[in-house]
Amino acid sequence: MGIILGENQYGKAENRVVRIYRDSPRHEIKDINVGTSLRGDFSAAHLDGDQRKVLPTDTQKQTAYAYAKEKGIESIEKYALALAYRFVDNNEPVEGARIEVEEYSWERAVVDGVEHDHTWVRKGQEVRTADITVEGKGDDQKTWVIGGLKDLVVLKSTGSEFHDFLEDEYTVLEPTNDRVMSTSLVAKWRFTTTDVDWEVVYPAVKQIIVEKFATVHSLALQQTLFQIGKAILEAFEYIAEVKLSAPNIHHFVYDLSRFGLENNNEVFNADDRPYGLIQATVTRDDAPDAGPSWTPQRAWLS
Amino acid sequence: MGIILGENQYGKAENRVVRIYRDSPRHEIKDINVGTSLRGDFSAAHLDGDQRKVLPTDTQKQTAYAYAKEKGIESIEKYALALAYRFVDNNEPVEGARIEVEEYSWERAVVDGVEHDHTWVRKGQEVRTADITVEGKGDDQKTWVIGGLKDLVVLKSTGSEFHDFLEDEYTVLEPTNDRVMSTSLVAKWRFTTTDVDWEVVYPAVKQIIVEKFATVHSLALQQTLFQIGKAILEAFEYIAEVKLSAPNIHHFVYDLSRFGLENNNEVFNADDRPYGLIQATVTRDDAPDAGPSWTPQRAWLS
Amino acid sequence: MGIILGENQYGKAENRVVRIYRDSPRHEIKDINVGTSLRGDFSAAHLDGDQRKVLPTDTQKQTAYAYAKEKGIESIEKYALALAYRFVDNNEPVEGARIEVEEYSWERAVVDGVEHDHTWVRKGQEVRTADITVEGKGDDQKTWVIGGLKDLVVLKSTGSEFHDFLEDEYTVLEPTNDRVMSTSLVAKWRFTTTDVDWEVVYPAVKQIIVEKFATVHSLALQQTLFQIGKAILEAFEYIAEVKLSAPNIHHFVYDLSRFGLENNNEVFNADDRPYGLIQATVTRDDAPDAGPSWTPQRAWLS
Amino acid sequence: MGIILGENQYGKAENRVVRIYRDSPRHEIKDINVGTSLRGDFSAAHLDGDQRKVLPTDTQKQTAYAYAKEKGIESIEKYALALAYRFVDNNEPVEGARIEVEEYSWERAVVDGVEHDHTWVRKGQEVRTADITVEGKGDDQKTWVIGGLKDLVVLKSTGSEFHDFLEDEYTVLEPTNDRVMSTSLVAKWRFTTTDVDWEVVYPAVKQIIVEKFATVHSLALQQTLFQIGKAILEAFEYIAEVKLSAPNIHHFVYDLSRFGLENNNEVFNADDRPYGLIQATVTRDDAPDAGPSWTPQRAWLS
Repeated sequence: MGIILGENQYGKAENRVVRIYRDSPRHEIKDINVGTSLRGDFSAAHLDGDQRKVLPTDTQKQTAYAYAKEKGIESIEKYALALAYRFVDNNEPVEGARIEVEEYSWERAVVDGVEHDHTWVRKGQEVRTADITVEGKGDDQKTWVIGGLKDLVVLKSTGSEFHDFLEDEYTVLEPTNDRVMSTSLVAKWRFTTTDVDWEVVYPAVKQIIVEKFATVHSLALQQTLFQIGKAILEAFEYIAEVKLSAPNIHHFVYDLSRFGLENNNEVFNADDRPYGLIQATVTRDDAPDAGPSWTPQRAWLS
Repeated sequence: MGIILGENQYGKAENRVVRIYRDSPRHEIKDINVGTSLRGDFSAAHLDGDQRKVLPTDTQKQTAYAYAKEKGIESIEKYALALAYRFVDNNEPVEGARIEVEEYSWERAVVDGVEHDHTWVRKGQEVRTADITVEGKGDDQKTWVIGGLKDLVVLKSTGSEFHDFLEDEYTVLEPTNDRVMSTSLVAKWRFTTTDVDWEVVYPAVKQIIVEKFATVHSLALQQTLFQIGKAILEAFEYIAEVKLSAPNIHHFVYDLSRFGLENNNEVFNADDRPYGLIQATVTRDDAPDAGPSWTPQRAWLS
Repeated sequence: MGIILGENQYGKAENRVVRIYRDSPRHEIKDINVGTSLRGDFSAAHLDGDQRKVLPTDTQKQTAYAYAKEKGIESIEKYALALAYRFVDNNEPVEGARIEVEEYSWERAVVDGVEHDHTWVRKGQEVRTADITVEGKGDDQKTWVIGGLKDLVVLKSTGSEFHDFLEDEYTVLEPTNDRVMSTSLVAKWRFTTTDVDWEVVYPAVKQIIVEKFATVHSLALQQTLFQIGKAILEAFEYIAEVKLSAPNIHHFVYDLSRFGLENNNEVFNADDRPYGLIQATVTRDDAPDAGPSWTPQRAWLS
Repeated sequence: MGIILGENQYGKAENRVVRIYRDSPRHEIKDINVGTSLRGDFSAAHLDGDQRKVLPTDTQKQTAYAYAKEKGIESIEKYALALAYRFVDNNEPVEGARIEVEEYSWERAVVDGVEHDHTWVRKGQEVRTADITVEGKGDDQKTWVIGGLKDLVVLKSTGSEFHDFLEDEYTVLEPTNDRVMSTSLVAKWRFTTTDVDWEVVYPAVKQIIVEKFATVHSLALQQTLFQIGKAILEAFEYIAEVKLSAPNIHHFVYDLSRFGLENNNEVFNADDRPYGLIQATVTRDDAPDAGPSWTPQRAWLS
């Protein structure tokens, strides 16, 4: 009949797993949001409602909680890799798995100047992410690991310009040599190996992002993004590609001249919508194939 | 040095344009959220901060508002096509454009049984979407139009089963022959032509979605999705592909037996997280190439 | 010591109860969000951690689900009254109860022109609310019922003015004789009796709100709100008081003159923040005492 | 006619003011969300649409931005007091003003171990709040200042119990001697004077909250809240009253026994809804009258 099933996946999204390590009086906490998705030949389920190849999304959820105990959550990359291999290697019909993890970070409460053993305050800054894709079985199996962060809100009050841009008859923007630049960054970096000390790389990449945002004298958000990506690639030879998405959170100089007040980039209206949206990939020219590693679960269609 | 710029785009997101037609006492309203994104060789902006090829995102915003007057918003597909062609055809460095539009629908206030001329109540049901991609210039120019909807929340209180699924040692789910099935549907359909009466197709596709959700006796959400996609393709020969993303909003039968109460699928807890997430493509086997038409703006990296 | 416990309450918020009536093939659905809160002398729990007077919030949740079966959800006001009486009359330490319910409305799917028996589409328009307060026991028991709605988004494209306002040295607003007026209304109305046909009153009040918004030629949002409240009180003698909160969702006429385009109230930018916020009470001069009926649960401190 | 205007107020909500101090190369930032609301006899506006006593909400907005320059934002309490006095003292019809401010905190970017002069990362932890009420003119003028915070998410992995509670026939909760306790705290404290070093008090109160949450061995969230309030009152004699609202973010021990795994409070599901909601006031027995100081703007009706 000519109508066929195309690309598809299914899974469980937003399992809110909290893991407490309490082997000593000084407890540790890992607080994560896990999504799992399976890929394979599930045409019987779609065409005939035949579930014999379908591992229920409930089972995926149970596995996510069980693995928090069995494998632990040393790092979200390692935990997600274990989950992905479990689904692909243990279920004949599953040909690929996508695991997406968000991690919320906590800092210890400080009491009388001392870190508390079992109380934390949620940090609330950026969310760390890991996106794992495993495809195929046995010797043909391929693995992709993408680290990342989102909701990292940064702002610089000077050191940013924007001028000499293309103009047409709808162009009314004034050029500027000094503006506020602010964004809520999403950044993702693709590894070429799993032989990585994940807990060392993550804070180092975050530090590069913050430093480059601060120190690049920016002629455009595009330039800042490229410099961030380049610096990450230069620092870590086993990172092949960096993707960045940066809303330009507009801070408009508020017109106070009507009230006889000078406003030399001192008072701004932080506007919600619309916002600029700058998105770029920085990559090695010999980066290995990305395969399906950038195909998301929750944002698969949106 | 081996570090290069990869895929990139930039634009203005979430322009909230409201257009009132007031040529007669009976006004009309169009209420939309517009995103624009340009693609092309913007490497100078990324590498050197050179903006000479960069049409500012502010200009893109101005154009969106100006076109609401100049071209009008007869349908979001037509309006978005005009915007896309404007950016690509009028700016030498722009090699492609992506326009994403959301439309919020309103119904007329009814006063004494009569529809009011200039007052509306927002309907609040699904959001209609259009995603337009134009690539290339002149004879090589290609156009893709994707219609869609999101946030269509549907529920059936019977006529849904789930059993005979794959089991492993983490499987504890009980099979069921009668359950509540509910989802908040995202659906997108790709046209093969722009010679379409957009205002006729949209309600017809929505109606097919609702009817199929209601009438397919479902052995799995996968089966329902496939039947929906198939029916859309059968109804419209100029639609080549349908993508569907459906969270399975779990309605758990509440355990009232502890209180001596029978609960024969009458009282449910509607749970927020986690949720199943079923995603499928239904396509013609001879569908023309999708090109970059599924590459989004706002969800480019998420 | 001079430090004492003041006003307090505790309960369970946001129980998402869905009730299906399936006594005939034509099912019915009630979809609600229930909050319960108890008031009384709970000082032992606060001062000494002594729970002997504390009915757990988990028990409150169980009761909400059990009552969906035992008492049913004919109307949210009736269901909430039953819950409130249960908590106060059945537990000696409980001196008062506050029940807050939100109801999400659904419309039947239409298949081949006929309403479907067991499939619905969520309407998505306003949310209906009920806030019940019961205080005291036996002959001294007092009951307050507040009906309401929220998220009712309305817009009129003409018939609204704003001018001749107070001015000071920071006033730069231009007066207008024709503007768009739009709001997302919250309205609550207080009954003086429980002998009410709740399912009749609610749609009638909503209809009054929409009609008055449409037909009052408005010199200010304040005037529209007062006329709405007045009309409700005139229509229902057993409603004593109406409270309304209305964000003024600003629709700014977009400046197209820079592009040689006329914009005669045709193209607007719908701005998010900031917004005007107009709040008013319309009451009978002999309204009975409101007691604690306006003291909320979820918004108790915010 | 017996239908009259009751309690009312109007203003501008959510002005997003960002203030940069750039008098030296080391810039400073204040990032706030300001709401203003005026109270007085505005019956003419409501009854007749007569605006002559109405200072536009747009003027309130302009004043908020102008004062960010003229008065500065040393602390949100001081800035909001200046705004409130401005509205009441400068406009004859305005008899009272309510100013609500939220402050988002930033930390300096660190580059090569040194704090950067003009780049910050948003901290993202709690939001600081100030609610100012001024009522009356001249010698009769009264002022109330409420400091506060919201969205402070804390968790302790042990040191919390809940047992020996009241039981009825719907009680199925198991008592526990060791559970996770977590909340997203809202706390507000009312001052009896404006002669306060606001920048010193705020971090001190926050520290008390965190320390008490950590160190009180809790038999109920109620007990923890009371101890927090009591400690704040003991530390600051010019604070008269503390109000706390604490959702009990349930962390359910996940049942892993089905998989032969022990779960000794190690793996939890963090549930979204429903949640317990515990709310308490801790006050001095001789606290001065709170007047209208707890009547909010944005949450006036919700």
